[in-house]
Amino acid sequence: MLNLPIKNKKNILLNKYDKTETTFTQCINQDLKKVNNYIIKNIKSEIPLIPVLSNHLLKSGGKRIRPALTILFSKLFGYDCGLRNIELASCIELIHMASLLHDDVVDESLLRRGSNTANSIWGNKASVLVGDYLFTKAFQIMVKDKDTRVLKALSTASKSLAQGEVMQLSLENNIDVSKEKYFKVIEDKTAKLFSAASLVGGIVSDARESFFPLLSDYGELIGTAFQIFDDAMDYDITNKDIGKKVGDDFKEGKVTLPVILAVEKSNNKERSFWIKAIENLNQEKEDFDYALSIINKYNALHETKEVAQVYAKKAQKILEKLPNNIYNDALVSLTHFIIKRNN
Amino acid sequence: MLNLPIKNKKNILLNKYDKTETTFTQCINQDLKKVNNYIIKNIKSEIPLIPVLSNHLLKSGGKRIRPALTILFSKLFGYDCGLRNIELASCIELIHMASLLHDDVVDESLLRRGSNTANSIWGNKASVLVGDYLFTKAFQIMVKDKDTRVLKALSTASKSLAQGEVMQLSLENNIDVSKEKYFKVIEDKTAKLFSAASLVGGIVSDARESFFPLLSDYGELIGTAFQIFDDAMDYDITNKDIGKKVGDDFKEGKVTLPVILAVEKSNNKERSFWIKAIENLNQEKEDFDYALSIINKYNALHETKEVAQVYAKKAQKILEKLPNNIYNDALVSLTHFIIKRNN
Repeated sequence: MLNLPIKNKKNILLNKYDKTETTFTQCINQDLKKVNNYIIKNIKSEIPLIPVLSNHLLKSGGKRIRPALTILFSKLFGYDCGLRNIELASCIELIHMASLLHDDVVDESLLRRGSNTANSIWGNKASVLVGDYLFTKAFQIMVKDKDTRVLKALSTASKSLAQGEVMQLSLENNIDVSKEKYFKVIEDKTAKLFSAASLVGGIVSDARESFFPLLSDYGELIGTAFQIFDDAMDYDITNKDIGKKVGDDFKEGKVTLPVILAVEKSNNKERSFWIKAIENLNQEKEDFDYALSIINKYNALHETKEVAQVYAKKAQKILEKLPNNIYNDALVSLTHFIIKRNN
Repeated sequence: MLNLPIKNKKNILLNKYDKTETTFTQCINQDLKKVNNYIIKNIKSEIPLIPVLSNHLLKSGGKRIRPALTILFSKLFGYDCGLRNIELASCIELIHMASLLHDDVVDESLLRRGSNTANSIWGNKASVLVGDYLFTKAFQIMVKDKDTRVLKALSTASKSLAQGEVMQLSLENNIDVSKEKYFKVIEDKTAKLFSAASLVGGIVSDARESFFPLLSDYGELIGTAFQIFDDAMDYDITNKDIGKKVGDDFKEGKVTLPVILAVEKSNNKERSFWIKAIENLNQEKEDFDYALSIINKYNALHETKEVAQVYAKKAQKILEKLPNNIYNDALVSLTHFIIKRNN
């Protein structure tokens, strides 16, 4: 795992552009549409449930950050003569979609990005099995691509993802989870797929192999930043009105960085509260507000976001070592977006 | 799909040996132990839940027919200088194990082969996620093997398996499922992995490519026979005392061949019963006995077993075209075992 200090209180100005999501997607907008179409084409099936459920997931939004990484890195290194970047970006998004379907079953979630989850509409059975289907479809696409470096990167990332998801079960209902364990989980369940998505962009474009570790590291850092920021948003009530789920992790008794940092500093009364609410899942209506008050008292939300910024800044430093062109600029804006986004 | 008449009433004597399970496993007993050890070695993890849950599944029995096919075919063609057959046989068993874990969640099963299911002990969350882990582990093993023919065979079989599982959902609670649909489901969810397991045995041993279609066809036929016989056993009360589940498919409202054949011939009163019990899942204590009485009245169980025998006999014919040695003999006994077994 990449070790970074998690108590850097410096307010980090990431870059001079302060670019928006639009900026980073606009130069690959057509490519992301191709990814969408490629996925739709590949999940066509004689079994209506597969495209119906998958299309529901596709339409419920999503930032397509993983495929964007593959495409941006492929173009940064000059790829312009084929569809491998689209096909493999789609493959990576399919792996992500499969994990979302299983996640929602495991978390018994009813809403994702403001829409009803697939499991709440078609049931857990359908979500488990269609998730399996999407994963095997991704696997077929990468086998068709035939590049052993891609296969190795994506099989390793898939295994990490599954391992991270299992490990995450152990972060539930236990307020004494260590920061090390938390970072190991997000490295496995999120950062490794971001890392592979970035590396695959370099592989398809035949970038110099000396760049490969930089791409993997960038993906791992930005994936870590993404997940930490995501975990922060679950306790950020300023997001409450803009469609973002707030309080789900608390309700499920998941222990993420804002809670870990708050528990570290909690007094006996507060510690008893965390045990009651998170370990015993004995929660009353006003408990989330009380949790927020403890988190704010110890500045744990702000500190969590700063940790995400530290990772993002380190990721941005890597971009400075890569060829400078509009795709590099777009990656800078993506890096910025990841720790500024609202959903 | 392989088309076969399903109304062949001839009593088929499969072969002159009438060999037992012991016979077909005894010549590869050491290899099957190596498969077990290789799986255990590969699911070692810093997350205790993964080996604990997987070992429970491994220990709860299972016939290891898929890895046996890979090993027997590899040895039939003279493979004796490496461990690829063991590694890939393990990989195929891991795919099967992953599907069992998800199956049990989907079917809400409490027992498998007389033991408590993993989901009944560790919960659905753990079974879904450890299932994903086992599948990604299988994927890693085959990527490490690097043979594109193996990767193609196993990625296609995995996709079929997942597709068949989704399609199977449509066989629930609908008594007008056609035989064509039933056969398509078992082709996808069972026969294709048997087919790939057999083919991989030929690939690792560098058998002549002209044999490959025979191996695929053998696997598909014997996989089909296996699943049909399995579906028959769910209505075979002579198995009741020997640990085999009886009546589970009925309870879940699954429509398999014994029911399809009985529904075809049912009168209005019987048809109303099937609708009540299978479509509406409105079942009383004595309903399974009544279902059995209809199935027996129309000879549907016997006919189902005969269909399995037709497939097995056709599979056996293929073995006659392959090199004749002790491994071929063992495959003959395996073919026989599949439609005579008790669990």
